[in-house]
Amino acid sequence: MTRPRVVIAGAGFGGLTCARALKRAAVDVLIVDRNNYHLFTPLLYQVASALLDPGEIARPVRSLIRPLANADFKQAEVTGADLDGRRLLTDRGEIPYDYLVLATGSQSDYFGNASLARHAYGLKDLEEGLALRNRILSQFESSRWATDAEQRRVLLTFAVVGAGPTGVELAGSLVELIHLVLRKDYRDLDLGEVRVLLLEAAAAPLGTFVPTLREAARKSLEKKGVELMLGAKVESVDESSIKLVGGTQIAAGTVVWTAGVRASDLGQGLGIELGRQSRVKVEPTLQVPGHPAAFVIGDLAGASVEGATLPMLIPVAMQEGKQVAATIAELVRNGGAKVFRYKDPGIMATIGRNSAVAELGAVRLSGFAGWLMWLGVHLVNVISFRSRLIVLVNWAWDYLFYDRPVRLILRARDGGGDRTSQTGPMRG
Amino acid sequence: MTRPRVVIAGAGFGGLTCARALKRAAVDVLIVDRNNYHLFTPLLYQVASALLDPGEIARPVRSLIRPLANADFKQAEVTGADLDGRRLLTDRGEIPYDYLVLATGSQSDYFGNASLARHAYGLKDLEEGLALRNRILSQFESSRWATDAEQRRVLLTFAVVGAGPTGVELAGSLVELIHLVLRKDYRDLDLGEVRVLLLEAAAAPLGTFVPTLREAARKSLEKKGVELMLGAKVESVDESSIKLVGGTQIAAGTVVWTAGVRASDLGQGLGIELGRQSRVKVEPTLQVPGHPAAFVIGDLAGASVEGATLPMLIPVAMQEGKQVAATIAELVRNGGAKVFRYKDPGIMATIGRNSAVAELGAVRLSGFAGWLMWLGVHLVNVISFRSRLIVLVNWAWDYLFYDRPVRLILRARDGGGDRTSQTGPMRG
Repeated sequence: MTRPRVVIAGAGFGGLTCARALKRAAVDVLIVDRNNYHLFTPLLYQVASALLDPGEIARPVRSLIRPLANADFKQAEVTGADLDGRRLLTDRGEIPYDYLVLATGSQSDYFGNASLARHAYGLKDLEEGLALRNRILSQFESSRWATDAEQRRVLLTFAVVGAGPTGVELAGSLVELIHLVLRKDYRDLDLGEVRVLLLEAAAAPLGTFVPTLREAARKSLEKKGVELMLGAKVESVDESSIKLVGGTQIAAGTVVWTAGVRASDLGQGLGIELGRQSRVKVEPTLQVPGHPAAFVIGDLAGASVEGATLPMLIPVAMQEGKQVAATIAELVRNGGAKVFRYKDPGIMATIGRNSAVAELGAVRLSGFAGWLMWLGVHLVNVISFRSRLIVLVNWAWDYLFYDRPVRLILRARDGGGDRTSQTGPMRG
Repeated sequence: MTRPRVVIAGAGFGGLTCARALKRAAVDVLIVDRNNYHLFTPLLYQVASALLDPGEIARPVRSLIRPLANADFKQAEVTGADLDGRRLLTDRGEIPYDYLVLATGSQSDYFGNASLARHAYGLKDLEEGLALRNRILSQFESSRWATDAEQRRVLLTFAVVGAGPTGVELAGSLVELIHLVLRKDYRDLDLGEVRVLLLEAAAAPLGTFVPTLREAARKSLEKKGVELMLGAKVESVDESSIKLVGGTQIAAGTVVWTAGVRASDLGQGLGIELGRQSRVKVEPTLQVPGHPAAFVIGDLAGASVEGATLPMLIPVAMQEGKQVAATIAELVRNGGAKVFRYKDPGIMATIGRNSAVAELGAVRLSGFAGWLMWLGVHLVNVISFRSRLIVLVNWAWDYLFYDRPVRLILRARDGGGDRTSQTGPMRG
């Protein structure tokens, strides 16, 4: 007798946790993802700021599922799902399922602003992280060819939009890259010509934290040299500037957008009601309404607990993945689905070396204590022992010698040979 | 009084060694390179075979020249040189010089074969190394979607053309990646459907080595599972096959070309006589004939010693760089140029774990002894202590656990935002 087949779309924290939790269930598991790796997203900003190499925060899915005797992987772009016909649709073909778990995550949301979509850099996947690293380092190299101060000012202004955890961590890491590392690379660099801006529409950074930690983060960012602009709403962006609502124009050659996120497009084609941020409105059991064999978890799911939609956070995705695995194991044994309950482990964000804020229930840490907590939690969670060791070496090297080894401007060509006649833009 | 300006085109082994040797000379040095990093090319094949990450074999030029108080760097593509007007020409502008050192290296030579230029992968720079890694891993992923054995055979045949050191090292490393690592990733992989071919037009691999070592290499390659095809001359290549002179057709979805190398195009525009492999025919002092302030070193130079042109090897480039630095220091003091003499330190090539051949004067090592020698020499020469440590961790990990952590199919996008409408090929 063949065992029921569970197809999981997405090898992020939700999908991977679900597959792992199904290890002993009487099912066959197939994970599908457009990339062949699982990404440790909390450290993506460190790839962008030239501290870590991609191999240090990403692991092949096939490596990670080796201990799972009932799990397999196929690389494909998931394009949709036929919930009535029980088939997952991909760019390489259809995959029939008995149970489906949709966990394709989220993407940058530019709220329909075409200038942002065109000119701003995102920081949601490894390719975007590398593109941003290339851009930052290239701007510094280009600035050495600039003939006037105005040109250099545009090249050397980096504006991060959105002061949530990603924006705060990137801005902090970027200002340290410049002040502590690149300054040594560019002897004639005038740091007065370099700006790292952090633009936030609200009145404080880190809106999801308590006010005391917001204030600690604000002080820490400014002390490190980040120009925090609060109440700043971006109207449009072009190659060399940002225009704010109200008319202020800021010269900036590089704009990073971390101010909007919405669920992956997969939700749109399901014929199911979507909630805020295009997230799929799931049942309290995480099942798709009317399709009890299909589940949605992680950023793609808009699970409500006591009326409030759960945030797009890794612990939410992981706990949902675990719960869905338990439910599927139950259903296979002809049991029933349970309601999902979220256990909040807290939130944290780091602001470069020696500084972070952490809100863990009643415990609130900031400054060096917060940073030690951040360091411990992230080091323990980096995916494998090997990564842990190498990440530790890199961090120690950076910490002790103010040096970041992976300051490489690097692109991978798509094909072989001497294709000098092809000049299209790069695209993953 | 301003000091004479030495402009060095190329931050490879030749250019970098020259800059370092000018550390105490009464000159200002400017290095120009299209990349912002120096590449440790001997380990490039390990990037292609998913053993090392780019950051482990490349170092920012600006890092490397920090100890040189008189040296600076600018990133630009060198497009030519006006030897009469004493200006180096680049895509970002002209750079006047008092002394010029051309060290832009070599590139793949497809001997005008358009099918090779179009379909074959090269392995001369980091971007090519990454493109090849992406290709190899993608072929395995694609093979899981193939519906018949013939399709899988094409996808899973990797043909390396040219059994010089690069070809031998790549083929050996590739067959080990497949047999020792990927086999564990793909439970249902039939190794009988995978082929690693090494095609060589001559009658033996490693033509520059003595016959006993050639034979040792041949045996070692075949024992590891490489199908060595000797006397095989490639006529043409298409998407799914190689055609040999004589008519034999081989199904192969991935072809890597290591059988031809010629000097960088920079030599062509100088109006100077070129020798074999388009290398610049320099004076015995490495000066350009008729232009005593201009020097050519490394792969771009075709320096003759006792009638024979020196090979394209790192020790040649480094010794030439040193010599030219000494000559320039002399010239600045109104001295004269000396004739270059090459001191041959020997050659070596590795064939995967536990096996290498080394020819160091009268000393000839093969097998495990050769491998230990190779390991020592390469570890000592990897550019910095930090890289050394991380490379060592990766090597030890691979050696002990038969695992390669960086099996990532990864591309960097060129720009920011949501450029889904752009579909051009990637290009550095």
